[in-house]
Amino acid sequence: MMSVLRLGHRLARDPRISTHCGLVARALGADEIIYSGEHDESLLKGIEETVQRWGGPFSVRYEANWKKCIAEYRKKGYKITHLTMYGVSLKKSKMKKHKKMLIIIGGEKVQPEVYQMSDYNVSIENQPHSEVAALAVFLNECCRPKKFRNAKMRIVPQEKGKRVIEEK
Amino acid sequence: MMSVLRLGHRLARDPRISTHCGLVARALGADEIIYSGEHDESLLKGIEETVQRWGGPFSVRYEANWKKCIAEYRKKGYKITHLTMYGVSLKKSKMKKHKKMLIIIGGEKVQPEVYQMSDYNVSIENQPHSEVAALAVFLNECCRPKKFRNAKMRIVPQEKGKRVIEEK
Repeated sequence: MMSVLRLGHRLARDPRISTHCGLVARALGADEIIYSGEHDESLLKGIEETVQRWGGPFSVRYEANWKKCIAEYRKKGYKITHLTMYGVSLKKSKMKKHKKMLIIIGGEKVQPEVYQMSDYNVSIENQPHSEVAALAVFLNECCRPKKFRNAKMRIVPQEKGKRVIEEK
Repeated sequence: MMSVLRLGHRLARDPRISTHCGLVARALGADEIIYSGEHDESLLKGIEETVQRWGGPFSVRYEANWKKCIAEYRKKGYKITHLTMYGVSLKKSKMKKHKKMLIIIGGEKVQPEVYQMSDYNVSIENQPHSEVAALAVFLNECCRPKKFRNAKMRIVPQEKGKRVIEEK
């Protein structure tokens, strides 16, 4: 069980980056994404539409109180893993042992409590990069690929060009 | 030698996503990023400032004619690798053999010629995701990490919290 918590969404600046976070969470094997920060209905809808077209299971929701959210997941036995450029190197084998994980990715400014509330503060690279990138690399390394169900659309991989099948 | 070509930048929609592409290219070991699409001086400046603060070598430039750019890199012996959700699975060992690579990442709409001009059309996952994610996973798998030089700032990895050293 892999859940992603995206902190500090801002309506004015973040719709595309936050959308990419949601798409990556789904595509690379997480079970859900929870958005915090400013409430953005069209962001949630966009991800839901992707699930309807390309398959699930994957869920998306908004949660105003991220501290409560972290505390709840901890109670349910999830390890809290914060992805940050300030953290220590990713230890794949250590991470893979945990069956339940809440992966936190920040926005522009992450509050100090997040570092304290997390079991792990993990960096993909100790250089400025991107929450989308950190999430992608982490899931690619630590999460098993998922088989999508109930998809209306499916890609058939091609050496050149595009091929998409629409299921009837 | 790893170069990244980011196609189809749009001033109105893409500054943050394109910035993330540049940061990821630098952080995960590429040597340069070339932006095509609409010319965006502040995008180039932003990446240059990151190099000045966090170290290099890494270069960034704009190129209006992406077809010419691809042809030139091919002539110089670069393998052309297009990252696309429609492509075939990444074969790490095959990719790692190439010393010189031009990695193409698309914008919203990638023109059919790109698929034809590329030696490889490679997918990280045959699901909608993100060019930032595709670039991050590809570089993480296929590119050797870089030692940065002339940095004014350097992170000291921490289990909890942040530590940044400013070099004098």
